[in-house]
Amino acid sequence: MKAVVLLSGGLDSTTVLAIARSEGYECHTLTFDYGQRHRIELERARVVSSRLGAVRHVAVRLDLSAFGGSALTDDIAVPKDGVGVGIPVTYVPARNTVFLSVALGWAEVLGAQDIFIGVNALDYSGYPDCRPEFIAAFEQMANLATKAGVEGKRFRVRTPLIEMTKAQIIRTGQELGVDYALTSSCYDPASDGTPCGVCDSCRLRAKGFAEAGLVDPLGR
Amino acid sequence: MKAVVLLSGGLDSTTVLAIARSEGYECHTLTFDYGQRHRIELERARVVSSRLGAVRHVAVRLDLSAFGGSALTDDIAVPKDGVGVGIPVTYVPARNTVFLSVALGWAEVLGAQDIFIGVNALDYSGYPDCRPEFIAAFEQMANLATKAGVEGKRFRVRTPLIEMTKAQIIRTGQELGVDYALTSSCYDPASDGTPCGVCDSCRLRAKGFAEAGLVDPLGR
Repeated sequence: MKAVVLLSGGLDSTTVLAIARSEGYECHTLTFDYGQRHRIELERARVVSSRLGAVRHVAVRLDLSAFGGSALTDDIAVPKDGVGVGIPVTYVPARNTVFLSVALGWAEVLGAQDIFIGVNALDYSGYPDCRPEFIAAFEQMANLATKAGVEGKRFRVRTPLIEMTKAQIIRTGQELGVDYALTSSCYDPASDGTPCGVCDSCRLRAKGFAEAGLVDPLGR
Repeated sequence: MKAVVLLSGGLDSTTVLAIARSEGYECHTLTFDYGQRHRIELERARVVSSRLGAVRHVAVRLDLSAFGGSALTDDIAVPKDGVGVGIPVTYVPARNTVFLSVALGWAEVLGAQDIFIGVNALDYSGYPDCRPEFIAAFEQMANLATKAGVEGKRFRVRTPLIEMTKAQIIRTGQELGVDYALTSSCYDPASDGTPCGVCDSCRLRAKGFAEAGLVDPLGR
């Protein structure tokens, strides 16, 4: 049984890959080079994919930075003063929509019906495209968009983390043997990959390890 | 009033741009370099965008050929023996889904609520992602996917050609002053851009000009 797994090389998507593998899927991992400032992700994704036994890894170049609009691709400063309310400036417009659409195209070519994505509705940092109602609407659209859908094959967008806290995600990965030293979560790491420790993503990761009663192997 | 217009440089999308301009939109045109074999499209799109008065043209590189699966990007032969029934091998998996998703991201950054696309449900050559039910599902998903949607702004996917015959499209463009000599429709043109005359797209174009009682300035 084949699946396409969206893999950023971060903690969440790495855990998702471990879950898909534990369910017996033949995993095809997909990473985007979308002009993100945290380039270390791309290398981590490749390493994680191989270590967790995916059969193929593809990095697709899609330069959304031509449009601007996000602190993750532009010169807008990444906030370092704590997780705020509302939609943060690190939001990349329509990012999950674009990622899922490309994954859908690959799934159709592979004959895969399952697409895994590590969205999370609790610790989700305020992104609208991480909510269950978005995922449901995407599935409905996907089944109208494709040759496979027309022929009666149903695509599923699998979101195993959607109701988990960060602590639950980390415990799940730990049970499945994930080495979180391989992952990168920081929005603004140093050139050697050392996390800043103070962006939203670093704060959520630290809180998650603390609540899980575990030590982050990245040492923050 | 801003709009994002998906523009391939073909007859349909060029007519759509003319329609959007005639409605008074400030048009931002978007073309994809998705590894298509008919590279002439990219150049035509740039010229058409400028001639029809769009304010900005962006070509986004997105290499879907890494996945394979279509005669438009792979070594699968483009059929030349007439328009058949069912979904043809020139179908690019999830193409309109991907194109609309990227357009959605740009629309959100621009503060545009309208995305124009030249899909057509009559002469549509058998692609599932050209049907009105797909467009409606995409709109619903888009309004759940985005910050703008969450804040109550409604995205519209505008499909002015969806119920038109090819002849009606050509007559509409003619009335708006479109110079169809600028456009390229062929799936497999010669290196100088000369259309093959026998692929599905060339056949539909020829039939359209014949039914409109007009002469194709490309001379086929």
